[in-house]
Amino acid sequence: MALTRAERLVSNAEGMDAIVIANDGEPFLDSTFWYLTEQASGTFEGSFAIVRKDGSMDVIVSVLEEESASEGAGEVRVYHDREERENFIREALSGCSKVGFNMHSATYAAVQYVKKVAEGIEPVDAGKAIGETVSVKDEKEIAATREACRISSQVAREIPGYLSEGVSEKEVAARMDNRMRELGGSGNAFDTIAAFGAYSSQPHHMPCDYRLKKGDTALFDFGSKYGRYCSDMTRTVFLGRPPEILERAYEVVREAQLAGIAEYMDGAPANAADLAARELIDGTEFKGKFIHSFGHGIGMEVHQDISVSPRSEQRLKAGNVVSAEPGIYIPGVGGIRIEDTCLITEDGCEVLTSFDHSFTVI
Amino acid sequence: MALTRAERLVSNAEGMDAIVIANDGEPFLDSTFWYLTEQASGTFEGSFAIVRKDGSMDVIVSVLEEESASEGAGEVRVYHDREERENFIREALSGCSKVGFNMHSATYAAVQYVKKVAEGIEPVDAGKAIGETVSVKDEKEIAATREACRISSQVAREIPGYLSEGVSEKEVAARMDNRMRELGGSGNAFDTIAAFGAYSSQPHHMPCDYRLKKGDTALFDFGSKYGRYCSDMTRTVFLGRPPEILERAYEVVREAQLAGIAEYMDGAPANAADLAARELIDGTEFKGKFIHSFGHGIGMEVHQDISVSPRSEQRLKAGNVVSAEPGIYIPGVGGIRIEDTCLITEDGCEVLTSFDHSFTVI
Repeated sequence: MALTRAERLVSNAEGMDAIVIANDGEPFLDSTFWYLTEQASGTFEGSFAIVRKDGSMDVIVSVLEEESASEGAGEVRVYHDREERENFIREALSGCSKVGFNMHSATYAAVQYVKKVAEGIEPVDAGKAIGETVSVKDEKEIAATREACRISSQVAREIPGYLSEGVSEKEVAARMDNRMRELGGSGNAFDTIAAFGAYSSQPHHMPCDYRLKKGDTALFDFGSKYGRYCSDMTRTVFLGRPPEILERAYEVVREAQLAGIAEYMDGAPANAADLAARELIDGTEFKGKFIHSFGHGIGMEVHQDISVSPRSEQRLKAGNVVSAEPGIYIPGVGGIRIEDTCLITEDGCEVLTSFDHSFTVI
Repeated sequence: MALTRAERLVSNAEGMDAIVIANDGEPFLDSTFWYLTEQASGTFEGSFAIVRKDGSMDVIVSVLEEESASEGAGEVRVYHDREERENFIREALSGCSKVGFNMHSATYAAVQYVKKVAEGIEPVDAGKAIGETVSVKDEKEIAATREACRISSQVAREIPGYLSEGVSEKEVAARMDNRMRELGGSGNAFDTIAAFGAYSSQPHHMPCDYRLKKGDTALFDFGSKYGRYCSDMTRTVFLGRPPEILERAYEVVREAQLAGIAEYMDGAPANAADLAARELIDGTEFKGKFIHSFGHGIGMEVHQDISVSPRSEQRLKAGNVVSAEPGIYIPGVGGIRIEDTCLITEDGCEVLTSFDHSFTVI
């Protein structure tokens, strides 16, 4: 029989007697909680999933979630007050010494709380073990990711039809978000970036009231969620012919993306794709203008393990879902980014998103 | 001259030499960062706002955010790599001993990182000081909150028109979300809850494919964001006459909300509203069925200080924005909740949301 998700986590968490996934208040909730429990519903603030060495899991939830928690994996233990919660935590960790926490996804207060309640435990960082576990997707996860990619790809194809002189960034972003929901998405994977003209040179620009003008770049970075899984993609198009430098930048980014994607395969060093794309860009007049990483893992969080950056020392594995998103940013002029969501396979990768990648003038 | 937000924070943070607001990766971002910096745009992962005793503030951001961060409060310091970031943090905290962190809104890893970088500091919990600061809204914040409330109230009034036999929870939730955006909202304050029939007895139910039937309760808990500020409201209506017990429950919840709201005013103990509503419900056949708190603070986070719960020891202040949301939950039958967003004033409160609160059968 295949391992459960909790058992897979344990197999990656050498030396730990238990792993605690701790939710504080919204938005400080750890998606690993939903990964492990496979809960379909519920907010689960103040809830804990505690996995022990034998792969068994206690899911400690408040009475507010009692009905929601009746499905899913693990043994659900419903507390009615703080004292009961503390007893459940103590019991779940009884006899444990080294206890792993998701240090970048648990609040300081939550870790300190468990440490105080379960006296004598030594908190260690389980981030790497969790990353290794959630970054290799199972069939159910891949199916949900495909669906999220299908939804955002449809919107990417429709983008040229949304654009005309005078439309604002906010208006187009809202239309894209609505359309993703219409197409069956459960929500945005993240706040949609719509950046026109010079704003496109800010990688994290938030849609504003700026209105599209002839000659403007129009960059859209967006994704849908489907069954908690994210897609992530970026399409850059132009309203009328842009300055020539941006057309050249577009072609360079496009080639850089292909060069990077060519390095995506099971067993490859994760930094190879970044270095290939970066080398290509740095060999042009745009040297130094690719100011972020080539890619990142995608799952229940739109940014998660694996890191596809120049200094990454990780290796890709079949089942990883990663972005491929080179960019060139010219302050005051504009920015170009092309991004797809890719599934690493035994002998290469499958690009899960699709749209016309050629230089598109509307 | 009025105090800056950073100066107000310092005035609440007795005994601390500095306060560090630390953003980890998305979604582990602290809204206090935006409160203090008044940044309009940007994601600001891996960024820090450090406020010193004299009210001065360093805003330490990555080169990715350089353009975004050019507006807003504080002195912006742009780092290009980890070493430069660490130098900025060390400089900002030089000479500081007791350093406050937002322990429920910073990851364990982020606090440990700053502790390691700025050797010799003693981290203390600044959560209370931050809560006291952000819970009293200034005019700019109240104006944005009013706008968020206006948007969701309009949708609340339209809800009966969205409902007919056979429509699914997901469909109505998507329509509500789209409509809030259309009306000018920048996004959801939280995932919209649409809960029909027996699902309405789960306070945190997530919209599913269940389709509305005659006699069903239809409960909607939702809110909009406007300029980062949230509204929060719940409307419960019925498709056709529901079981009589739910009609009685509706009337009890309605009275309980009024009883609670009557306790909302500057200087009042925050638990008075909860106790008044709870006493009313517990004096009926629905004793024990009000299984959560009467209210919570609302701001950039939809749940923040103040806690309006039975054991709260806080006092309300003019400028607080709090929810008023009693409910009665009958497992397997249905739930009723009525919720408004309220602004505490000198002599009472102003209910910022509006819709028809009477028992509504469609």
